[in-house]
Amino acid sequence: MMIGRAPNFNAGPAAMPQSVLEHAAQEMTNYADTGMSVMELSHRSTAYEAIHDEAQAHVRTLYGLSDEYVVLFLQGGASTQFAMVPMHALTPQTHGAYVVNGSWGEKALAEARIVGNADVCASTKDGGYRTIRPWDAQWTNRAPAYVHITTNETIEGVQWSTEALPKHVDCPLIADMSSDLFSRPLDVRPFSLIYAGAQKNIGPSGVTLVIARKSFVDVPRPHVPTMLRYDTHIKANSLYNTPPTFAIYMMSLVLRWISDNGGLEAMDARSRQRAGHVYRAIDDSGGFYVGHADAHSRSQMNVTFRLPTPELEKQFLQEAKKQNFVGLAGHRSVGGIRVSNYNAVTEQAIDAVVSFMRHFCQMHG
Amino acid sequence: MMIGRAPNFNAGPAAMPQSVLEHAAQEMTNYADTGMSVMELSHRSTAYEAIHDEAQAHVRTLYGLSDEYVVLFLQGGASTQFAMVPMHALTPQTHGAYVVNGSWGEKALAEARIVGNADVCASTKDGGYRTIRPWDAQWTNRAPAYVHITTNETIEGVQWSTEALPKHVDCPLIADMSSDLFSRPLDVRPFSLIYAGAQKNIGPSGVTLVIARKSFVDVPRPHVPTMLRYDTHIKANSLYNTPPTFAIYMMSLVLRWISDNGGLEAMDARSRQRAGHVYRAIDDSGGFYVGHADAHSRSQMNVTFRLPTPELEKQFLQEAKKQNFVGLAGHRSVGGIRVSNYNAVTEQAIDAVVSFMRHFCQMHG
Repeated sequence: MMIGRAPNFNAGPAAMPQSVLEHAAQEMTNYADTGMSVMELSHRSTAYEAIHDEAQAHVRTLYGLSDEYVVLFLQGGASTQFAMVPMHALTPQTHGAYVVNGSWGEKALAEARIVGNADVCASTKDGGYRTIRPWDAQWTNRAPAYVHITTNETIEGVQWSTEALPKHVDCPLIADMSSDLFSRPLDVRPFSLIYAGAQKNIGPSGVTLVIARKSFVDVPRPHVPTMLRYDTHIKANSLYNTPPTFAIYMMSLVLRWISDNGGLEAMDARSRQRAGHVYRAIDDSGGFYVGHADAHSRSQMNVTFRLPTPELEKQFLQEAKKQNFVGLAGHRSVGGIRVSNYNAVTEQAIDAVVSFMRHFCQMHG
Repeated sequence: MMIGRAPNFNAGPAAMPQSVLEHAAQEMTNYADTGMSVMELSHRSTAYEAIHDEAQAHVRTLYGLSDEYVVLFLQGGASTQFAMVPMHALTPQTHGAYVVNGSWGEKALAEARIVGNADVCASTKDGGYRTIRPWDAQWTNRAPAYVHITTNETIEGVQWSTEALPKHVDCPLIADMSSDLFSRPLDVRPFSLIYAGAQKNIGPSGVTLVIARKSFVDVPRPHVPTMLRYDTHIKANSLYNTPPTFAIYMMSLVLRWISDNGGLEAMDARSRQRAGHVYRAIDDSGGFYVGHADAHSRSQMNVTFRLPTPELEKQFLQEAKKQNFVGLAGHRSVGGIRVSNYNAVTEQAIDAVVSFMRHFCQMHG
C-alpha cells in the first residue's frame, strides 16, 4: 500500500498541488454552502459565474493583460486549436508559416495542411529536434498570414528560452504554449494568439485556455462550424454551450494557488532550480546520462535523456518503479527517460529522483 | 448556512448521486492506492485505462451493445456533434432531414446548414413545440443521407415516448439524446448514431458520449479536421489526444451507480414515478398550473408549466428560492417553471417540490 503522495513526473495530465486537491475534496458535496457540488451548479448560476470570473481574472492579472486581449475556456485540447487557428486565419490565397522544433510542431503543421496552406519556415528535424534556432526575420519574407511556434516540445524536451522568444514579429504570431504557459513570466504583446491545454501547469485535462488579441480573433467566420469560431466564444464569454465547469473550477483553484505562491516569477525561479538539479545530475554523470537537448535549448519543463543502452534504460525504469516514481519513461515515440517538471512537482520529488539518478549512475556507470 | 444537500432541479449540469460525489471526494488525493488523484494519472497509464474501460463496459452492458457499435468519449458537447454529424455524413450532393420538435432540434438544423444541406422533414414549431408527431415513413421520401431527431427537448419539455420512437427507418437515424440517454431502456438497433453530453443523467459537463454503428462512422474523411473525424477517435479508442480524464472517471462512477441500482429499467420506473407526481400536481390544480406539453408528449425529464400570470411565476420562484429549491426557473428563452428530473434527482426532492406546488396553488389559486 502506498503511503502518502507519489513523486509524479507525468508529462500531462500531471501532478496537481496537494492543497488544491484537498480543497476540492473538502467541498465536493457542498460548495460554498450551496448544498451542491461545483459539478451540479448550473453554468448560468451566480455561484458558477463567480468561479468562471475568478479564473479569468487570475489569467488577466498574472499576465497583466490589457483589454486588447480576450481569455477563453474551450474544449478539445491543443489538437483542436491546431485546426481552429488555420480555419480562422487562412484563406485559399494565404498560408501559415510553421517553425517546427519537435513532434508537436509537426502535428500543428499537419493539421493546418488539412484545412489550408501551410509552409515550414524553419525546422530542426534534421538534427533530431535538439535545438531551438534564434528567431530569423527572414521567416516572414513570404508574407504568411501568421507564424506558428511551439514554445516547449514535451517529447524532445526543447524549449524557447524566455530570452529567445521573439519581441517583435511583423505578422500575427501564434504559439502553442500547452506545456509552459503559467510556468514563467511572459510579455504577451508580440503574440496574437496563445493556446494551452490545462493539464500540464494549471489543472486537469478537459479545458483549453486561449489568450488572444481581440482584433485578431473577434472576426466572424460564417462558414466555420459555430463551436470552432473564436467569435462565438468571445460573444458568449465562453458560455455559448455548457463549458467543462468542474475543470474550469480546478483551473481557478490552481491559478489561485499560483497567485498565492508568488506568481509567475516564483514558478519560474522554482522550476528553473528544480530542472537545474536534474540537468546537473546529467552533466555530472561523466557521459552516463546523455541529455537530448542542446545546452541552450534545454526545457525547464521536460528533462529528456538517454542511458548507454536500452537495457540500462529498462533497468532504470524498473528500479524507479519499485521506488514508486511515476511517469519517468520517455514518450513512446522516442523512448529514453523524461522527468517532467511542471509547477506542482515538488522540490522533494525532484531531490528524490536526482538522488536515485546519482545512485543508479554510481552502480552502473 | 445550508444544512445538507439542496433539492436540485437544474436542467444540466444537474444533480449527481450523493454517494458518487462522496466516493470521488474520498479518493481525490489518492486513487486506488496510487498516491495520485485520478486527474494526475497519465491517460496512457494502466490505472486510467481501467477507468476508461469500465465506463465503456457499463455503456455496452446497459444497452446490450453488439460489436457492431462503438462507444466514444469526445469533447465539445452536443453543440459540437451538431457539426460533426453533417461533416461526416453529408456530401455536396446529399442532404440531412431534421425532425424539429423544439429549440435543440432547431440548433442541430441550423448547424447542419452551415456545413451542408439540411431540410426540415417535420416541425411542430407552429404549435409552439408542444407535441411529438408519430413517425411518418414519408419523412424519408426525398432519400436523405440521414434523419435527425432530438429525443427530449429540455426547454419545451417534450419527449419521444419509448413507444413512439421509430423501430425501423430506411436510412441512417441520428439522435441527440443529451437529456434522456441512460434514463430508460432503449433498443439502439434502429439508430446509426446517438450522442449526449454527460451533464444531465450520467456525469459532469466536459464529456460527450457517442454510441454509433461502426459501419456508419468508421469511414475516413480526409478533409475533415482530425479531431472532428469519428474514425480518429475509433482507431485511438477515444485516446487520440488527452481525453477529459476526470469527467470520464465521474461518468464511470455514475454508470456504476446506475448498474448497481437496477439499471435502466429501474431508472425509468423511478423517473416515471417522480415525473408523475409533478404532472399530477399540475393536473390537480384546476388550471392554476398549465403544462406546456400535450399529454402524450410530456417529458419524463423536464416538466415545464406556466402559472396564470408572470407576477405569480415570479412569486413562485421567489418563495421556492427561500425554501432552497434550486433550478426551477424555465429556460431564459421561454420563461415559466421547469422541474428537471434526471436520474439523480431524489424522490424526497420531488416530494418536497410537489408539496410546495400544492401549497402555493392553495394560497394563490
